[in-house]
Amino acid sequence: MQKNEIKIIEEISLDNPIFIEALPGIGHVGKLAADHLIDELKAVKFAEIYSPSFPPQVFIGEGGIIENMYNELYYLKSQGEDERDFIILVGNTQSLSPEGQYSLCGDILDFIESFGVKELFTLGGLATGQPVEDTKVFGAATDTEKIKILEEIGVEIRSSDGGIVGASGLFLGLGQLRGMSGICLMGQTPGYFIDAQAAEAILIKLSKLLKIEVSTDELEKRAEETKSMISKAQQMEQEMISHQMTPQDGDDLRYIG
Amino acid sequence: MQKNEIKIIEEISLDNPIFIEALPGIGHVGKLAADHLIDELKAVKFAEIYSPSFPPQVFIGEGGIIENMYNELYYLKSQGEDERDFIILVGNTQSLSPEGQYSLCGDILDFIESFGVKELFTLGGLATGQPVEDTKVFGAATDTEKIKILEEIGVEIRSSDGGIVGASGLFLGLGQLRGMSGICLMGQTPGYFIDAQAAEAILIKLSKLLKIEVSTDELEKRAEETKSMISKAQQMEQEMISHQMTPQDGDDLRYIG
Amino acid sequence: MQKNEIKIIEEISLDNPIFIEALPGIGHVGKLAADHLIDELKAVKFAEIYSPSFPPQVFIGEGGIIENMYNELYYLKSQGEDERDFIILVGNTQSLSPEGQYSLCGDILDFIESFGVKELFTLGGLATGQPVEDTKVFGAATDTEKIKILEEIGVEIRSSDGGIVGASGLFLGLGQLRGMSGICLMGQTPGYFIDAQAAEAILIKLSKLLKIEVSTDELEKRAEETKSMISKAQQMEQEMISHQMTPQDGDDLRYIG
Amino acid sequence: MQKNEIKIIEEISLDNPIFIEALPGIGHVGKLAADHLIDELKAVKFAEIYSPSFPPQVFIGEGGIIENMYNELYYLKSQGEDERDFIILVGNTQSLSPEGQYSLCGDILDFIESFGVKELFTLGGLATGQPVEDTKVFGAATDTEKIKILEEIGVEIRSSDGGIVGASGLFLGLGQLRGMSGICLMGQTPGYFIDAQAAEAILIKLSKLLKIEVSTDELEKRAEETKSMISKAQQMEQEMISHQMTPQDGDDLRYIG
Repeated sequence: MQKNEIKIIEEISLDNPIFIEALPGIGHVGKLAADHLIDELKAVKFAEIYSPSFPPQVFIGEGGIIENMYNELYYLKSQGEDERDFIILVGNTQSLSPEGQYSLCGDILDFIESFGVKELFTLGGLATGQPVEDTKVFGAATDTEKIKILEEIGVEIRSSDGGIVGASGLFLGLGQLRGMSGICLMGQTPGYFIDAQAAEAILIKLSKLLKIEVSTDELEKRAEETKSMISKAQQMEQEMISHQMTPQDGDDLRYIG
Repeated sequence: MQKNEIKIIEEISLDNPIFIEALPGIGHVGKLAADHLIDELKAVKFAEIYSPSFPPQVFIGEGGIIENMYNELYYLKSQGEDERDFIILVGNTQSLSPEGQYSLCGDILDFIESFGVKELFTLGGLATGQPVEDTKVFGAATDTEKIKILEEIGVEIRSSDGGIVGASGLFLGLGQLRGMSGICLMGQTPGYFIDAQAAEAILIKLSKLLKIEVSTDELEKRAEETKSMISKAQQMEQEMISHQMTPQDGDDLRYIG
Repeated sequence: MQKNEIKIIEEISLDNPIFIEALPGIGHVGKLAADHLIDELKAVKFAEIYSPSFPPQVFIGEGGIIENMYNELYYLKSQGEDERDFIILVGNTQSLSPEGQYSLCGDILDFIESFGVKELFTLGGLATGQPVEDTKVFGAATDTEKIKILEEIGVEIRSSDGGIVGASGLFLGLGQLRGMSGICLMGQTPGYFIDAQAAEAILIKLSKLLKIEVSTDELEKRAEETKSMISKAQQMEQEMISHQMTPQDGDDLRYIG
Repeated sequence: MQKNEIKIIEEISLDNPIFIEALPGIGHVGKLAADHLIDELKAVKFAEIYSPSFPPQVFIGEGGIIENMYNELYYLKSQGEDERDFIILVGNTQSLSPEGQYSLCGDILDFIESFGVKELFTLGGLATGQPVEDTKVFGAATDTEKIKILEEIGVEIRSSDGGIVGASGLFLGLGQLRGMSGICLMGQTPGYFIDAQAAEAILIKLSKLLKIEVSTDELEKRAEETKSMISKAQQMEQEMISHQMTPQDGDDLRYIG
């Protein structure tokens, strides 16, 4: 495999869909929120993505069945108050190399642009390194209009403060260059593994932004299930990612998508 | 050299061959087992493989003769009870970079697919870091059918537990995407260099799976010979790989193929 | 994104322009000087540059608006005593990988060569690791003619002493191979963040070389503004670059462009 | 610059030339020997080589003139007893990445093969980490015929002992795959910077092998000159290479070409 591969499972057509990215990052926050969204709203997988920039390995999953490194795309039609269509990107890894990140992000943007995507949401955790009592949701965006919308629903704007490393940053950045507008939501998390509380916090804000209704009743349970279901290797990988993306210096707040 | 090169030594045609991968990894377990298999069954080399993602070096072998970094393919015809054909991949190195691993694994899969391969076996060691009294063989597979077969012959299934890093994992994963089915056998090893005991343990299981007979009488001796024959550099490389692939954290069982 | 992208904002034609490079490096010295030059002389942006070898991230800027990793090109017409045209390269990052540096530097040289550039100036800081009382400006060049010019205006020539790592070195080197001539000016700096004093020192020398007049009155203030305006992430990145490019050994003077 | 560039300075034709490689490595041994050979025999430069896998930097040389990272090719006609032609590869760096090493080595082999090269010599140092009293020369080769020749002139054969990392190993290895035969000479050196004694030792053996006469009277002086002439950066780079290529473990003898 020399190139990124987007394997189409179902040929679909969508009407001006909104794109949501939630690949593995700090505290599993974005991934957990998106996986929950997919289950609750019964989103349908329509494409699988493989890349030579993913880690060269497989996970051993339930019952000893191996699991490739992958990203995948789900869709939803006519959701919520505005009857909008959605594309959701999830997976069990991100690209390892900078060039791999740019290449894959570019290829996925090409692909989703062909469905008419003009608006992006990226989800992630923001590690504090300390216990969080009242989970805040932080935000950044491609333009001031989006920032206003975030302020209206009580998302704390991070001004001149930090960066967004990885897919959650790059989708907004490269999307902006294509004329897309976008928002990044970051749930405050101590950085411990699988933070259902932070995932719930960003899901609540995301629901308001997307004008959809998503029950979060099962989220805590799902977090527990996820924890016991996913392989030790995935947990180790997750810890590695968190570790790698958490700055060692004195900065106490830091976001990685 | 900019691309992987598969140099064909003998043009052959095979009937629905089974593919066995055993490149260097933890404890030399897979490599030792496969080298033994090749010698015992008198497999014939039909292709050499070179890659720009191999370490940029040569080993100094017996009598001062240099030895390139290489992978090579052997074949066997009409073996065992089912009179099956085999292709065996061995070598003295794996690709260094993730992209190199994906690229080479993909090229080799293309090549063996042209011979009709639909079934894969990958062999390796699983480092415990502690002395092993009664060598266990662990397994993972691409599908539940294969898992059942493994359970029937007493291979311990690793469920949601760990990953398979490198060629032994990637061949199963990328093979699965092409509709191939496969099994990974991992011999428990303390991780010390050249573990004939672990190699024997996986050879016994492999023989049952392939319905072939392989004497393991000479295996211990071969391990000793190998040890004294191969260059110090190879031993150092081997130790490096083991070290690199053994997790530093508290996990006590870990497989690398 | 698989390739470097030069996005042309304004189609311009220039007459034998002089090229000035000042990408982020030690002490923000070159960048601060060039940004000041752009503001004071009201240079106009005519191209934006993006590269898959930049860090895979965005910065969060003022008001929570994300900022891509970028390089950009400004131009100036009929400046100073000789009424020369200029092209100025600035940005918020450099390529991460060696191959990325060579690739991007080559692409930018191709582009500026199409405007007729034959002369290059690259700006940077030279970290002493100690407080600097009387800021010296050090120089190196592609040829002895340029060295003479530097000596005439009191730039201290570094003979057989050190290297120039990154864009400030590579533009001179690869430019030289294309028959361009060039000078690198390096402002002595303790290596602390954003050194307005060192930036002023190289601006004074650069003005003499370019026969232009640039007030440096606002430079100190601009340094302060820059410091409070740019995001923490950029400051951290800056510190990282400085750290990475400052040798750990006993060498007390070292230049990175 | 995206590709390796071989810039031809003089179009030449040679008769079955012998190729000698001596790029920077441990103790500057190979490089010093080859530079001396070039000077003594008045070899003529006919090609310059640049690569995007070289370090992205320039050195500051004598009088403040910058010096690109480069490799270059010299030729000699009708030398010694057998009136043989030679091509000599020298330079101030090697490729940084494995892929870069394979790519550049392959490109140079393509180029020299077009002149009819069938025989290779690669020169380097072998670090002992301890003072050397009576400098030994170690050897390895592509075939037993060459090994015999080495033994006849008192070169110590390294059997199953170590590897040859970098260009000195790769030229032999990749050359062997093209049907070339070759020898690597490694001068024992404590690994201190610029070892004229080790360079002399391999020059004496090389002269016998090539049936040429090279005075080594000036070698010690040349080593001193080289030391004071080359930039601090080059010395630092050299030390870095030596450090990187010297194993940290207990192995007391180790060769890097």
